[in-house]
Amino acid sequence: MGDPNKKKEEEMEASSRDPSLPYKVGIPPKQKLWKEFSATLKETFFADDPLRSFKDQSGPRKFLLGAEAVFPILSWGRGYNLSKFKGDLVAGLTIATLCIPQDIGYAKLANLDPQYGLYSSFVPPLIYALMGSSRDIAIGPVAVVSLLLGTLLQDEVDPVANPLVYRRLAFTATFFAGITQATLGILRLGFLIDFLSHAAIVGFMGGAAITIALQQLKGFLGIKKFTKNTDLISVVKSILSSAPHGWNVPTILIGTSFLVFLLSAKYIGKKYKNLFWIAAISPLVSVILSTFIVFVSNAEEKGVQIVKHIEKGINRPSVDEIYFTKEYALKGLRIGIVAGMVALTEAVAIGRTFAAMKDYQIDGNKEMVALGAMNIAGSMTSCYVSTGSFSRSAVNFMAGCQTAVSNIVMSIVVLLTLLFLTPLFEYTPNAILSSIIISAVIGLIDYDAAILIWKIDRFDFVACMGAFLGVVFISVEIGLLIAVSISFMKLLLQVTRPRTALLGKIPGTNVYRNIQQYPEATKVAGVLIIRVDSAIYFSNSNYIRERLLRWLTDEDELLVATRLPKIQFLIVEMSPVTDIDTSGIHALEDLHRSLQKRSVQLVLANPGPTVMDKLHASDVADLIGEDRIFLTVADAVQTCSSKFSDEV
Amino acid sequence: MGDPNKKKEEEMEASSRDPSLPYKVGIPPKQKLWKEFSATLKETFFADDPLRSFKDQSGPRKFLLGAEAVFPILSWGRGYNLSKFKGDLVAGLTIATLCIPQDIGYAKLANLDPQYGLYSSFVPPLIYALMGSSRDIAIGPVAVVSLLLGTLLQDEVDPVANPLVYRRLAFTATFFAGITQATLGILRLGFLIDFLSHAAIVGFMGGAAITIALQQLKGFLGIKKFTKNTDLISVVKSILSSAPHGWNVPTILIGTSFLVFLLSAKYIGKKYKNLFWIAAISPLVSVILSTFIVFVSNAEEKGVQIVKHIEKGINRPSVDEIYFTKEYALKGLRIGIVAGMVALTEAVAIGRTFAAMKDYQIDGNKEMVALGAMNIAGSMTSCYVSTGSFSRSAVNFMAGCQTAVSNIVMSIVVLLTLLFLTPLFEYTPNAILSSIIISAVIGLIDYDAAILIWKIDRFDFVACMGAFLGVVFISVEIGLLIAVSISFMKLLLQVTRPRTALLGKIPGTNVYRNIQQYPEATKVAGVLIIRVDSAIYFSNSNYIRERLLRWLTDEDELLVATRLPKIQFLIVEMSPVTDIDTSGIHALEDLHRSLQKRSVQLVLANPGPTVMDKLHASDVADLIGEDRIFLTVADAVQTCSSKFSDEV
Repeated sequence: MGDPNKKKEEEMEASSRDPSLPYKVGIPPKQKLWKEFSATLKETFFADDPLRSFKDQSGPRKFLLGAEAVFPILSWGRGYNLSKFKGDLVAGLTIATLCIPQDIGYAKLANLDPQYGLYSSFVPPLIYALMGSSRDIAIGPVAVVSLLLGTLLQDEVDPVANPLVYRRLAFTATFFAGITQATLGILRLGFLIDFLSHAAIVGFMGGAAITIALQQLKGFLGIKKFTKNTDLISVVKSILSSAPHGWNVPTILIGTSFLVFLLSAKYIGKKYKNLFWIAAISPLVSVILSTFIVFVSNAEEKGVQIVKHIEKGINRPSVDEIYFTKEYALKGLRIGIVAGMVALTEAVAIGRTFAAMKDYQIDGNKEMVALGAMNIAGSMTSCYVSTGSFSRSAVNFMAGCQTAVSNIVMSIVVLLTLLFLTPLFEYTPNAILSSIIISAVIGLIDYDAAILIWKIDRFDFVACMGAFLGVVFISVEIGLLIAVSISFMKLLLQVTRPRTALLGKIPGTNVYRNIQQYPEATKVAGVLIIRVDSAIYFSNSNYIRERLLRWLTDEDELLVATRLPKIQFLIVEMSPVTDIDTSGIHALEDLHRSLQKRSVQLVLANPGPTVMDKLHASDVADLIGEDRIFLTVADAVQTCSSKFSDEV
Repeated sequence: MGDPNKKKEEEMEASSRDPSLPYKVGIPPKQKLWKEFSATLKETFFADDPLRSFKDQSGPRKFLLGAEAVFPILSWGRGYNLSKFKGDLVAGLTIATLCIPQDIGYAKLANLDPQYGLYSSFVPPLIYALMGSSRDIAIGPVAVVSLLLGTLLQDEVDPVANPLVYRRLAFTATFFAGITQATLGILRLGFLIDFLSHAAIVGFMGGAAITIALQQLKGFLGIKKFTKNTDLISVVKSILSSAPHGWNVPTILIGTSFLVFLLSAKYIGKKYKNLFWIAAISPLVSVILSTFIVFVSNAEEKGVQIVKHIEKGINRPSVDEIYFTKEYALKGLRIGIVAGMVALTEAVAIGRTFAAMKDYQIDGNKEMVALGAMNIAGSMTSCYVSTGSFSRSAVNFMAGCQTAVSNIVMSIVVLLTLLFLTPLFEYTPNAILSSIIISAVIGLIDYDAAILIWKIDRFDFVACMGAFLGVVFISVEIGLLIAVSISFMKLLLQVTRPRTALLGKIPGTNVYRNIQQYPEATKVAGVLIIRVDSAIYFSNSNYIRERLLRWLTDEDELLVATRLPKIQFLIVEMSPVTDIDTSGIHALEDLHRSLQKRSVQLVLANPGPTVMDKLHASDVADLIGEDRIFLTVADAVQTCSSKFSDEV
């Protein structure tokens, strides 16, 4: 489009436009209904233009591209080489050492036996490696989703009294979580997860981290009787009421010393980037050391609780354990939707973060299909909801992963562990797992982000703290609900109470700007210029009409007080008004009528294409008068003030 | 502010600004947290500045103003005079003749005995006259709310089998409808009803009108067995299955002839504005004539159904009939909220329409308190949910009402009717009431509005038809639900997928506008100018970032194809970006980073006060560079293209 326009410009310049007349506001060519509609649809659901590469391709090539779209491994696999594999091998081994102890602990958060955590680090990463497009994400069970799933499930079934029903419901929920994720992706409704604001996620994650850490005090202090509630007050009560006789001193000693070790390793890893591997392998080192200590010292007899038993062997198929009877399926569906959405939010956030760092594109919708497929497959092979882990993905990145092959490496290590090494965990003390979880979730508390949020946007901070306090003091679900509600409230407030601004002329220019921002800007006698800062829709049309009239009343009162002539022209700067609906058109009509009664003329500056189109469709353009619609505020002011000075 | 600014301008002009340098973008003075917060609160809940008149007043005067705020009659009553009373008397008598037959019919829609319709036209109008601020609204039972209430109530209790429980639940629902309305008003949450879009209301009302008319076929055709469902298919089935033996020929004859009479009167009244009274009194004339005919012809014995009995005497107190036991109170609350909100929507729409016509102000929140108080009082005096009636308010206006005194006049006429005239209605045929309702609700089908909606906004039309078809083919509640959902979807779409536009220079000016709207606008070599048309929030920040990058990719492809130099500057026109939150700030950061990787510089034009504030709070202003933030696109282009031509 570059060249032809230049020619046109010259033609235009040479054409007969009278420079003393204001430039006419453009009316866009009428679009066909279908074209307009399909453009909107495309922008909503296919904003990323996913079919771009399919354009002008042959049939077989299209098929190949389609297969590559579903299984990106077909595409990047072709360029895979040894040097990439080196990176992936190191990264995969590193995250494997990290994930094995975490998995065993996280399974407990979900009230499941430890092997289910390991299962979930075996099948889902393999599926993801085939279908996913993030190169850095590390797949497996994560703390927050495990806790959320555990809380939601135990509200329905008692995991101690009915372990089988509980486990079956867990698989059912996992199945529906996968269905939810895949459906959102296939229907290209991925943008729905954008409705959870960054601030709300920061608050929710921080709250969940504290809740999880509090839960770990059970294993950390060796308490046997512990509350089922997750809120701060219940947990503190539970701990205090069991102290000191319910506490186990050897457990506390082991737990504390290894927690200190883990946190120091973490600190070192953070401070010296090239020593990050110390932090990465410290959990496995702790497990090995502590298991050895307990084994030789017979600490179990002193009341130190140990893992005792992890089932040996790989995942059993669990298709027949998924409930499809109405009652349980509905419960599973509800829990699955919530857990699936939270898992999605986490995975997509991770994917986007690392994609931005390495500057590659991620298709959110395709990502959701991959995550959904992996959880559906997981639910049929004894796994529970998996997603991308913040802590392990960061380690994966730092360890130099190149592709999703690092997930395959991790998966193979987990497989070997399941086949041969589970008996070694028999003497692993629970306190170590608690310490590992505590040191892992502490990273989810993002003070810096919270401080930045406070600095940038107070309302966001309220959302952040609301979610945080909701999780900590009530429950994970309530915290999530608060986060979602506050996010929605903010959006609705935006569309109900848009801003309006009084404009003035910036001295020495022909530019009109907000007087609040540019106090040196000056008003024009007899003319009031107001900018409306939003599309005019039913939700705000009444407000905008009333607000404009109030600006006029306020200004007139001021002018009367200073004995200046009254306002005769209300110029509404429409640049930010990108759209208007029928209610908005009616509001403009009403405004025009009210102004006529006060002998003030309504003038519009720079209405956009959609607005011009609708002003004409509704004949409001004629009502206001075509000659009172200008390209710029400056044009409008020039015309109005010449009329004004004529009259005064 | 008029005068002092002028001085300032002169100072500024005289100051040392170098005209060759671009004008600096203003950073607004930091506001105190509390001030900022209270300003937002004020704009949200007190947008209409209701305490304005209280400012600088003495104590007793404030008390008087407060009393006047609650009871506007204290204010307008003082200026009341005989000439106003003449107008109100005529208008009041006219709407009374209209409301009496309508009330009897509407009570049936709500499955209540006819007297309850009359009761509801006696107490609520009196309360409204004391507290309401609309001068033109006519208060009483209305068709749509009666139908809605009847449908919702009969889902809970069978009105034939348990008439007492049904009636008590009706009063309970009315009580809670009033509580809902008053609460919304007191909490100044009146703007919530703005979330039902004009288009959705048009569709809902039209659908409800057709449903009501269909229901009237029972009385109109004299059918005894009739479906309880309100959807079109059930009703048509019911009518066809009872034809022809279930139909009563004398009933049809009477009904048809009077319907023709009513519609003709309506047509005349519409065509010749000064004959509107013919339409207004035609219902009463029909009732009198038909009652007389049935009485003398003994038509009752030929199967013509008649009203038979209306309880004589005024409203009994019904405080003790309101349920406060949990089960029924909850049902009543649910129904009351729905009916109360719909009633509010209707009343506020009427109030606003006539206020705009006569150019006086209505405080929506105060109006809600008045409507709520009148329904609470009504629920204690055997009335069901009342609100403003479209048809009667229009007649009230046409008949020259001046104040709410016309409602008092109407109320007194209804009182007299209840005391002395109810026996006269004994022989009134039901078919006449059906004809009156049909001719009344036909006015609710607003073809013109639907056509205008189609012309102005296709999406609004979808909302309109969705609500319409939902009501007609499914049920009133479902239609309402569809209307609300589509309205919300539209708002959410707006905040998720804001528009972006490619700008070009309008030849012969220094103005940059949307190239789609002004095809003659030209691009600038090496510079891409994109306008973002919305506040940047979490719900759209990712989309906006990706969309901007896609604009760049598209443009670069074009340039490569035409062998022109690549884009080096991306100017983002921020005028419409009124606000940005933490997610938005992060998106800008990510965008800046992605652009750097492609050696493109990010330049911002005209960020508003809030955006500037947050850019500085987050240090993103430094990241982008203060010297890359300009007052206007023209300034930015000038600086960029001089750099560009230096390099090329």
